[in-house]
Amino acid sequence: MKKNEIPYKIYLEEQEMPKQWYNVRADMQQKPAPLLNPGTLQPMTAEELAPVFCEELVAQELDDTTAYIDIPQEILEYYKMYRPSPLVRAYQLEKKLGTPAKIYYKFEGNNTSGSHKLNSAIAQAYYAKKQGLQGVTTETGAGQWGTALSMACAYLGLDCNVYMVKVSYEQKPFRREVMRTYGAKVTPSPSMSTEVGKKILAEHPGTTGSLGCAISEAVEAAVTKKGYRYVLGSVLNQVLLHQSVIGLEAKAAMDKYGVVPDVIIGCAGGGSNLGGLISPFMGEKLRGERDYRFIAVEPASCPSLTRGKYVYDFCDTGMVTPLAKMYTLGSSFIPSANHAGGLRYHGMSPIVSELFHQSLLEARAVEQTSVFEAAEQFARIEGILPAPESAHAIRAAMDEALHCKETGEEKTILFGLTGTGYFDMVAYEKFNDGVMGDYIPTDADLEKGFAGIPDIPQNK
Amino acid sequence: MKKNEIPYKIYLEEQEMPKQWYNVRADMQQKPAPLLNPGTLQPMTAEELAPVFCEELVAQELDDTTAYIDIPQEILEYYKMYRPSPLVRAYQLEKKLGTPAKIYYKFEGNNTSGSHKLNSAIAQAYYAKKQGLQGVTTETGAGQWGTALSMACAYLGLDCNVYMVKVSYEQKPFRREVMRTYGAKVTPSPSMSTEVGKKILAEHPGTTGSLGCAISEAVEAAVTKKGYRYVLGSVLNQVLLHQSVIGLEAKAAMDKYGVVPDVIIGCAGGGSNLGGLISPFMGEKLRGERDYRFIAVEPASCPSLTRGKYVYDFCDTGMVTPLAKMYTLGSSFIPSANHAGGLRYHGMSPIVSELFHQSLLEARAVEQTSVFEAAEQFARIEGILPAPESAHAIRAAMDEALHCKETGEEKTILFGLTGTGYFDMVAYEKFNDGVMGDYIPTDADLEKGFAGIPDIPQNK
Repeated sequence: MKKNEIPYKIYLEEQEMPKQWYNVRADMQQKPAPLLNPGTLQPMTAEELAPVFCEELVAQELDDTTAYIDIPQEILEYYKMYRPSPLVRAYQLEKKLGTPAKIYYKFEGNNTSGSHKLNSAIAQAYYAKKQGLQGVTTETGAGQWGTALSMACAYLGLDCNVYMVKVSYEQKPFRREVMRTYGAKVTPSPSMSTEVGKKILAEHPGTTGSLGCAISEAVEAAVTKKGYRYVLGSVLNQVLLHQSVIGLEAKAAMDKYGVVPDVIIGCAGGGSNLGGLISPFMGEKLRGERDYRFIAVEPASCPSLTRGKYVYDFCDTGMVTPLAKMYTLGSSFIPSANHAGGLRYHGMSPIVSELFHQSLLEARAVEQTSVFEAAEQFARIEGILPAPESAHAIRAAMDEALHCKETGEEKTILFGLTGTGYFDMVAYEKFNDGVMGDYIPTDADLEKGFAGIPDIPQNK
Repeated sequence: MKKNEIPYKIYLEEQEMPKQWYNVRADMQQKPAPLLNPGTLQPMTAEELAPVFCEELVAQELDDTTAYIDIPQEILEYYKMYRPSPLVRAYQLEKKLGTPAKIYYKFEGNNTSGSHKLNSAIAQAYYAKKQGLQGVTTETGAGQWGTALSMACAYLGLDCNVYMVKVSYEQKPFRREVMRTYGAKVTPSPSMSTEVGKKILAEHPGTTGSLGCAISEAVEAAVTKKGYRYVLGSVLNQVLLHQSVIGLEAKAAMDKYGVVPDVIIGCAGGGSNLGGLISPFMGEKLRGERDYRFIAVEPASCPSLTRGKYVYDFCDTGMVTPLAKMYTLGSSFIPSANHAGGLRYHGMSPIVSELFHQSLLEARAVEQTSVFEAAEQFARIEGILPAPESAHAIRAAMDEALHCKETGEEKTILFGLTGTGYFDMVAYEKFNDGVMGDYIPTDADLEKGFAGIPDIPQNK
C-alpha cells in the first residue's frame, strides 16, 4: 500500500486489473426477486430464457450465490485495450469549491463508446460468439449502448442489429454513423420490420419511439431469427455483474493508496453504472465489514426510485419481456420530450431496487438545469465535458462537497463519471442558449404510468 | 528499465512526466530560417513580434539554442489532469495484419479537445495570463485547436475569441457548442468584424472561408484590441516546442521497457504533432547518437511537403503575417471542398520543413479513401475511432507493417494517434455511404497557388 502523495490519476497496472467479476447478489440475504413468466407468473427458468439470451448469460442472470465469476481471457484481452480506466482525484474542483472534502471520480468515458457500456457489451458479445451465434439484436436510446455493442461485435465478427429510438436516430445522426462505421445495422424504432413495431405504429402513428418500444422490437427480432439472441445494456443482473469491473478497479486503486470513501455516488437510469460502481463496496457493507453511504441520483423527470412503485412490471412497452420486480413508473411512462439529460428508462435494475428497498442505499432526484450547471462547471474546471447522464452524479457530488464546506467535514467522496457528452451537444446548445427548463411529472402524469402496471397477485 | 512483457498500454507515473520541453532547434546545425518582416525583408525582432504574441512566447519562438526549457508548475498541474497519454502497443492490429512488426502508437485523443492541441493551448494561455492580458484570439478549422484553447482559457479565466472557418462553423455546430460551453466567443470567418474579413468578403462574396483567412482575422483582432494577443495551434516553433511533450513521454515510456523504434510516423498538416512526436528522437539523430527513420504523412489533396516549394511565404491568406520559409503551396491554395480528411494548411512548420530539406525525414502523400479504409479497419480492431487527420499516420503505419510482412522484418513502428473522430462523422458518413472520392490537385491547380508566393530575393 502506497501512502505517499496521491496523483491526479491512479491507473492500475495491467496485472492489477480484476480477473473476476463480483456478483453482489451472493452477499445479499434477501435476494432480488426473480423474473416471472408473465403467463404463468412462475419464476423464469433457464429453458424459458434460452431463446432470448445466450446460455452462459442466462446462467449469470439466474446465479445469485456465486460471489466471484472468472472473466474469460478473451474479454480480459479486450479490457486491456481500453481499461483500466483512471480513478481521478479532482484536486482542481476541490480547490474551486473551497471544500475540505476529497473528491474522486472513476472515469469510464475514455473509449469510443463514450461510456461504461463497453464493459458489458464485450462480455455479452463474447458469449454470443462462443455459443456459435451469428449475431445479436438490441435497442439503443442515446446511442451509447448501441455504439458499445457495435464495437464489440466488430471486434469479434458478429452481426449487430440495433433498434434505435426514432427521435434519437433522427436527432443523433452522428451516433448512428459511429455504429455504421463499426458495421452495425441501425433501424429507427418503431419500425415496420417487427410485428410489435407495426402494432405500435398503428396505435400511435407518428410516434418518435421510446426505449421500452425499441426493446420490444429487438427482443422480437432476436427470437424470430435463427442464430440471434437479444442483449441488453442495463437493468439485468448479468449487466451489473459485468459492470462490477468499475467498482473493483476503483476499490483496488483506492486500496493502493489507503483511501476509503465515505460516500459513493452514481447516476441511475437502468442502474448498470451505479450497480457496478458500488458492488464491491456494498459487498463489504452487506458482510458487515465496513459501512458506506451510497447515493443513487436520478432525473426529476424520470424518478423511478424516488417516486416509483416497487412492483412487478414489464421491462418494455410492448409487454413481450418477462416481469421484473423493480421500482417502476409503469412501462408506458415516457419522460417529457424536453428532458435532455438521459436516464429515461421507466424502471430500475432489480438488484438496485432491492438494495434501495432494504434502505442500503439512498436515492435523490435532481432537476436538469442544475445538472447542466454542474456539467458546465465541471467541464471548465476538470477539463472533461461530461455526458448529461454522468452530470447527475456530478451535481450530487458537488452538493455533498459544498455541504462539507458548511460543516467542515473532510469526507471522501467517490462518484462515477460514466461518460462524455460529445454526442450530446444539442442538449448543451439548449443550455448555452438559456432555453432549457425543468420538466417534472405531476402526480397525475405518474398515475397514468402506474395504471399500466400489470394487476397480478405479486403486486398486491 | 523493465524488460518484462509489454502491456497493452504504458502510462508513465506522474513523477515520470517530463518537466521540461525539448527544443530540437538547439541540436540542428542548419537552423530553420527566421521569420521575415514582409516590409523590410529583415528577420522579425522580438519588438516586432510583441504586439502579436505574448512576450515569453516570442522568446521561445526566437530561441534556437536552448535545448531544454522548464515547463512552468501551473502548466504541469494542468498536464497532470489529462496526461500522461498512453503509449499503446497495437497487439490486436499486429495480429490482424499478420505482421512480424511491432506497432506502437502514442494516443493523444483522450481529452475533451479530442487531440494533442491542448498541450500547446494551455501553455500559450498560461503565458497570456501571466502577462496580465485579458484574452487571446485565434482561428480554428475543424475545431480541435479552438476547443483546446477554449478549455485552457476557461480554466485560467481568460477571454477566448475564436474565428472559425465558416464552412466548419455551419457544418460542425457541435464543435462550436463545445467551445461555447467553455465560454468562448465563436465568430464565423470571414466576418464583418475585421477589416481583412470585410475585404475578403467584398472580393469573394459567399466564400465559406479558409484557415488562412481566419488567421488573418484573428491576428487583426489581436493587434487592434487592447489586452489581447494572437495564439496559433501549429506551424510555429513555440508550438513544436510545447508539443515535444508527446515525444518526450513516448520516449520515456519506450525506454522503460527497452524498446527502440525503427521508424516513427506522424501525420502532417502544420506539423505540430509530427514535430512534437519526433523531436527527442530527432535530437538523438542530430547528435549522432542513434539513427531513426521518420515519415511525415500528408493528404494527396494538400501536398505541401511532397509537391510544394521551399520558399518564403505568408502564413495566411490575407498576407498580414510575417513571412516564413517553409514548404508551401502558396497562401491562396485551398484544397478541394470534397477533401474531408483535415490537414488543409497550405504550408508546413519551418522546423519540419528544414528537417525535410536536409533529408532527415521522409514525406509521403496518401489518398483519402485509403485513409478512411485504414481508419475503419483500425477502429474495428483497436476500438478507437480516429480523427481523419490521425488516420493518415495509421495508413502509413499499416503500410509499413504490411511491408514487414512481405520482407519478414521485425521492425518496431511508432506512430502518433493525434486524436479522435467523434466530430468528424459527416466525413465518415460519406465514406460509409461510398460517396467519398480522391481529390488530387493537378499541376495547373498547384501553379495557381504558387503564383501567389511573394516574389522576393530570398525566393530566387
